[in-house]
Amino acid sequence: MTRWQDTSLSPDERAEALRAAMTLEEKVAQLGSAWPGNEQLGGNVAPMQDVFARGGVPFEQVRAAGIGHLTRVFGTAPVTAAEGAARVRELQREIVEETRLGVPAIVHEECLTGFTTLGATVYPAALAWAATFDPALVERMSAAIAEDMRAVGVHQGLSPVLDVVRDYRWGRVEETLGEDPYLVGMLGAAYVRGLEKTGVIATLKHFAGYSASRAARNHAPVSIGPREFRDVILPPFEMSIRDGGARAVMNAYVDLDGVPVGANAALLTGILREEWGFEGVVVSDYWAIAFLKSMHRVADTVGNAGALALAAGIDVELPDTLCYGKELIELVRSGEVPEQLVDRSVHRLLRQKAELGLLDQGWSPRTEAIDLDSPRNRAIAREIAEKSVVLLANDGVLPLTAGNIALVGPCADDPLAFMGCYSYPNHVLPRFPEFGIGVAAPSLVDSLRQELPDAEISLHQGCPIREEDRSGFAEAVAAAGKADVCVAVVGDRAGLFGEGTSGEGCDAEDLSLPGVQDELLSALLATGTPVIVVVVSGRPYALGPHTAAAAMIQAFMPGEEGGSALSGVLSGRVTPSGRLPVQVPRVAGGSPNTYLHPPLGGNSEGISNLDPTPLFPFGHGISYTTYEYSDLSLSATEIPADGTVSVSVTVRNAGERAGEETVQLYLHDVRAQVTRPVVALAGFARVALGPGESRRVTFGLHADRTSFTGIDLRRIVEPGTFEVCVGRSASDLPCTGSFEITGAVRAVGHDRVLSTPVVVS
Amino acid sequence: MTRWQDTSLSPDERAEALRAAMTLEEKVAQLGSAWPGNEQLGGNVAPMQDVFARGGVPFEQVRAAGIGHLTRVFGTAPVTAAEGAARVRELQREIVEETRLGVPAIVHEECLTGFTTLGATVYPAALAWAATFDPALVERMSAAIAEDMRAVGVHQGLSPVLDVVRDYRWGRVEETLGEDPYLVGMLGAAYVRGLEKTGVIATLKHFAGYSASRAARNHAPVSIGPREFRDVILPPFEMSIRDGGARAVMNAYVDLDGVPVGANAALLTGILREEWGFEGVVVSDYWAIAFLKSMHRVADTVGNAGALALAAGIDVELPDTLCYGKELIELVRSGEVPEQLVDRSVHRLLRQKAELGLLDQGWSPRTEAIDLDSPRNRAIAREIAEKSVVLLANDGVLPLTAGNIALVGPCADDPLAFMGCYSYPNHVLPRFPEFGIGVAAPSLVDSLRQELPDAEISLHQGCPIREEDRSGFAEAVAAAGKADVCVAVVGDRAGLFGEGTSGEGCDAEDLSLPGVQDELLSALLATGTPVIVVVVSGRPYALGPHTAAAAMIQAFMPGEEGGSALSGVLSGRVTPSGRLPVQVPRVAGGSPNTYLHPPLGGNSEGISNLDPTPLFPFGHGISYTTYEYSDLSLSATEIPADGTVSVSVTVRNAGERAGEETVQLYLHDVRAQVTRPVVALAGFARVALGPGESRRVTFGLHADRTSFTGIDLRRIVEPGTFEVCVGRSASDLPCTGSFEITGAVRAVGHDRVLSTPVVVS
Repeated sequence: MTRWQDTSLSPDERAEALRAAMTLEEKVAQLGSAWPGNEQLGGNVAPMQDVFARGGVPFEQVRAAGIGHLTRVFGTAPVTAAEGAARVRELQREIVEETRLGVPAIVHEECLTGFTTLGATVYPAALAWAATFDPALVERMSAAIAEDMRAVGVHQGLSPVLDVVRDYRWGRVEETLGEDPYLVGMLGAAYVRGLEKTGVIATLKHFAGYSASRAARNHAPVSIGPREFRDVILPPFEMSIRDGGARAVMNAYVDLDGVPVGANAALLTGILREEWGFEGVVVSDYWAIAFLKSMHRVADTVGNAGALALAAGIDVELPDTLCYGKELIELVRSGEVPEQLVDRSVHRLLRQKAELGLLDQGWSPRTEAIDLDSPRNRAIAREIAEKSVVLLANDGVLPLTAGNIALVGPCADDPLAFMGCYSYPNHVLPRFPEFGIGVAAPSLVDSLRQELPDAEISLHQGCPIREEDRSGFAEAVAAAGKADVCVAVVGDRAGLFGEGTSGEGCDAEDLSLPGVQDELLSALLATGTPVIVVVVSGRPYALGPHTAAAAMIQAFMPGEEGGSALSGVLSGRVTPSGRLPVQVPRVAGGSPNTYLHPPLGGNSEGISNLDPTPLFPFGHGISYTTYEYSDLSLSATEIPADGTVSVSVTVRNAGERAGEETVQLYLHDVRAQVTRPVVALAGFARVALGPGESRRVTFGLHADRTSFTGIDLRRIVEPGTFEVCVGRSASDLPCTGSFEITGAVRAVGHDRVLSTPVVVS
Repeated sequence: MTRWQDTSLSPDERAEALRAAMTLEEKVAQLGSAWPGNEQLGGNVAPMQDVFARGGVPFEQVRAAGIGHLTRVFGTAPVTAAEGAARVRELQREIVEETRLGVPAIVHEECLTGFTTLGATVYPAALAWAATFDPALVERMSAAIAEDMRAVGVHQGLSPVLDVVRDYRWGRVEETLGEDPYLVGMLGAAYVRGLEKTGVIATLKHFAGYSASRAARNHAPVSIGPREFRDVILPPFEMSIRDGGARAVMNAYVDLDGVPVGANAALLTGILREEWGFEGVVVSDYWAIAFLKSMHRVADTVGNAGALALAAGIDVELPDTLCYGKELIELVRSGEVPEQLVDRSVHRLLRQKAELGLLDQGWSPRTEAIDLDSPRNRAIAREIAEKSVVLLANDGVLPLTAGNIALVGPCADDPLAFMGCYSYPNHVLPRFPEFGIGVAAPSLVDSLRQELPDAEISLHQGCPIREEDRSGFAEAVAAAGKADVCVAVVGDRAGLFGEGTSGEGCDAEDLSLPGVQDELLSALLATGTPVIVVVVSGRPYALGPHTAAAAMIQAFMPGEEGGSALSGVLSGRVTPSGRLPVQVPRVAGGSPNTYLHPPLGGNSEGISNLDPTPLFPFGHGISYTTYEYSDLSLSATEIPADGTVSVSVTVRNAGERAGEETVQLYLHDVRAQVTRPVVALAGFARVALGPGESRRVTFGLHADRTSFTGIDLRRIVEPGTFEVCVGRSASDLPCTGSFEITGAVRAVGHDRVLSTPVVVS
């Protein structure tokens, strides 16, 4: 047994011993990766000359001196769990047996909407988790995902996405947790805990700033200053590392104010490691290092691109070794790149391999036989889907009673329209009955017919999601005209790089519904029949043109149980409880927008003719019951020495149905040295309440939650008056109070309190 | 005679002597202003509680201890030149005779589209000057404006607007010089020279960042980093101070990354004075200091707002004394604001008053009888208008021959649609025949009938500019269907705060034409009759839907001679020579956009489905002749010690008409330490060429023109290869070469070469 195999030593000691035993080639090989089988997906990212120039290197050659990561053995081509596990076993065997040191690779997969492989449970998209406002539920989901991945030899999941939404037009909005950094951080940290406690490495992405690209075009430059970056973009990452325990971070593709993140040492090393104390591994987003040359043009060779990335703090290149290859070795040999930079990254990776047991003698991959779409998984998927459906408006038409129902719209009979972009390998060939996807993911029409057996439900597509085809309008409008009620189900189809209307590379010019769906809704509304507009989408769309609807529902890619969840809400079996993690805009133009605006970012009557006030605000969501708020009290009007003030409020279910209310606490900084949001979320709690039942909700608010990046770019708690507002959404806050922070300004660093504990009694 | 009246002393000595003689109240009064008569315009900026709370203070009280500035004596209510001059005389008499020291006020007016007063020449909007690419012409115009203002007692003009366009949706795009910092700087400095050489103080605005507000909404927050700010936003200001000699600067309303500019000492004092050596006066934009309290909420009282602004570097509060009043005096008395801050600003202002002669014994205002719309003025206005019309596309239909012409569209018979937002006092009551506006500004239809006496021209509005009224479609479409050719004149109506479709506070949700004008164009194009689309607007609109047009013309608010200029281009009397200072987009959504993008800001095929490539690029404009480029040569392939390389190219008029070609030189930085624009304008020359004539154009390009803000935020010239491209527009560059910059990186400071001289031989 070698020293690095000795389990009585610490991971640090074992990593150090192994690194010391390695040649330069073996070390650099650890910083690389291989994507066997990717040829099958070739061409999905077109303009990458370096990628193409180097594609097709045989695996045998790539792993000759060892390999750091194995990329998406399951996620690339449709394989069953058993086939994938067998491939992992064979690839790892080859690496272990046919390299000098025999160090296994870390196997990573995508797992945003569940383990991204054929036939695995397609959970709701991240934006739907966000709409639950339920961290414990998200943690249950990610633990279930991690158990499945771990059982078949996967070590690392490339999730969660912590990008804070800044522009709804961005294709990847569906992958995010919405537009509030606190909500993103609370749910992101919960997701991370579920993965990490199960032994799977969580990967925070995309660090950082990706969501703020110009005009929301994928990869476009980011105009942002250091204050906005620190106060809006970074908090979820810090929370997910400090409170969540994430062990990996992936860089963002973009450049921030001209500096590509992949070459940004101030961020990848300065903030991440020196300020926050992160000790895990930074992996590159796929091809991001090569992009330093081909797209950002800050390097003139792939070797120099690698040198820039390595110096900045990217430890491992994904998905294939391109820049961390022989050119980098030459630069180390010639003295242009210090070998210590290689050693630094190799050590981090090997320490992680030691932690994972990969350096133990006799290691072999786990390849258990599991059901990737188990009843447990589906129950969690259904619970999230049900809790994520947001009832936006209802004149009383909902819940539906039996009768003649015209079910219209391109998303009414298409379960794929409910599945997020990153689930494509789960259903890459449409509908595999043999793997359970086709049969087990009922469309909305199937679910609704089951839910309302006495109703007469007619189905009419009306139009496709995307194409400008109005040929189905007449039939749909005629059916709606004759029906008691029309349910119009419109929205997105997730895809990659322009294949869909939502998802990576599927950005929008504006926030009108894709294709001719807005026209379809207008035609249906013109019939006079009550229309229930159901939007199932990856981003919010402008619903201002359709306020004549009798009811409006928003669901965000609710996954394979989405049809059932939506039917349940329509029928009343499910009492709606989802809340908006983004705003629903009034008009299609006028992007970008955010609820986190100072006064001049909101309605500036008399200053601009444009009013960016949303149709439905952040946090909004009604139900089939109502909730009353009263008796806000504060434990103190001046923050005491321990920094904490308790804010209590009574919430009462004033209706006749049991339900769950998400109580939201917002802060308003009355005056500050820099402009501050009018209100910002500082705490929330999902509370179950029977009919007539009351509960007292107490937030343990800490002064650190008032902190922000001051004029000198240090984080401060500034003395002054703060209003605390509690209620149903960012703009429906019936209970308010205020407290003072006195005394000298306290400088707060990265040991500050990041979250607000809540007690419900 | 007092010491401060002694003309043998320097302005500094006189200012110092006067300041020393002043009480604190008198000094603070100098930092204020009064807008007598503004009650009449009350309510045009609604949400300003502090402004309203303080409105209506009698002038007698405001000027009791003296006054710094008099605000818009001419520009507020319709007055003739003689009336205005009489008002100036009376107000100054009161100030001189009825205050202890008798120091006259500086009288300032707006002058962006000419002296902004009733009946004065309405020159084309700034965006039209930019389309001329002709600094000498702009300088002639501003000198003429300054002569008129000076003759009636005005000392300072609140122009030019140097905001670099970042988002075409912004209402104030028409007031700018376009989206390229070099073009804005060259033309802005020329404008400044015209004013300053005539003795009128030019005021650079809005310093800085106003144009980059979120979603282009007026006053909304600005997300921007220091590099983009320094490389894109600041250069025109530096050029107009260093090369133009501007003596005043006005702050921007907005906040940059959370810091309101009005409270931003790093910008208003650090960059402006310490880096650039500016010694003039900083005036506040109207009410901007009060906004620090009411809108930005960085101050809790108007006194504290004043203290913040004064400390940051705003010398004079405009348009009325609100924050630089008794509360500020109290803060000085109590020691919270150092009196030196007051003295610093008072000295700057008094020095300027000394320079203007205001401190001379026996001073009295100039009040000459002048013709505000003189033949000289109109000739200049016409020359700019003619040189600013951009022919975008032409299948040969232009120039028009006689025949049956259907002239359609809401801008065809409305000379006000040709006049920029800031000209409203010139025509504030529609059409004053008695002042020459109504009679002297022919509409397009009048001009065209004069221009083409043998044509049968029928006129049809089709639709209004803004309202959704399609009742005129049928008549217009019928007329177009029967005509030989249809000229469709669509676009904007300038206004303030939502009164128009372009102008201050008239921001756009997207870049579709206002109202139903896009629908009108589509209907006209569907007739099959050749349609010439003429857009007369304050911003570029998406013309992608109308590419079936036989020809397209873009004019930017061409002023009172606009009808004549456009008719001249249509008839062929004028050979088109305008060039786009902004791009014409293809689609209405997808904002913001700029031609100054790194590779990932442009078409990212395979990465985003959206292609932001414009329909017509920056610099584009064709003519009734064509130009050929050849024989690019460089004086050296390595930049020599003096830093200059000569780039020469031959341009030839290959057609049969005399014309003027704007030769454009762009730089491409092959690799840099930060992302850089694919191409950026570095030189241009408008060259007159007879049929068949050739000229050799030589640019004296300096290495400093390759400089940018490096990774450590210092301005650098980086060694490496640069491509130099010469041609017709940013994307039509037939001649290319390259040169090297070698040696150690030179740090370049604010003594660097800012402009590229051109020799035409």
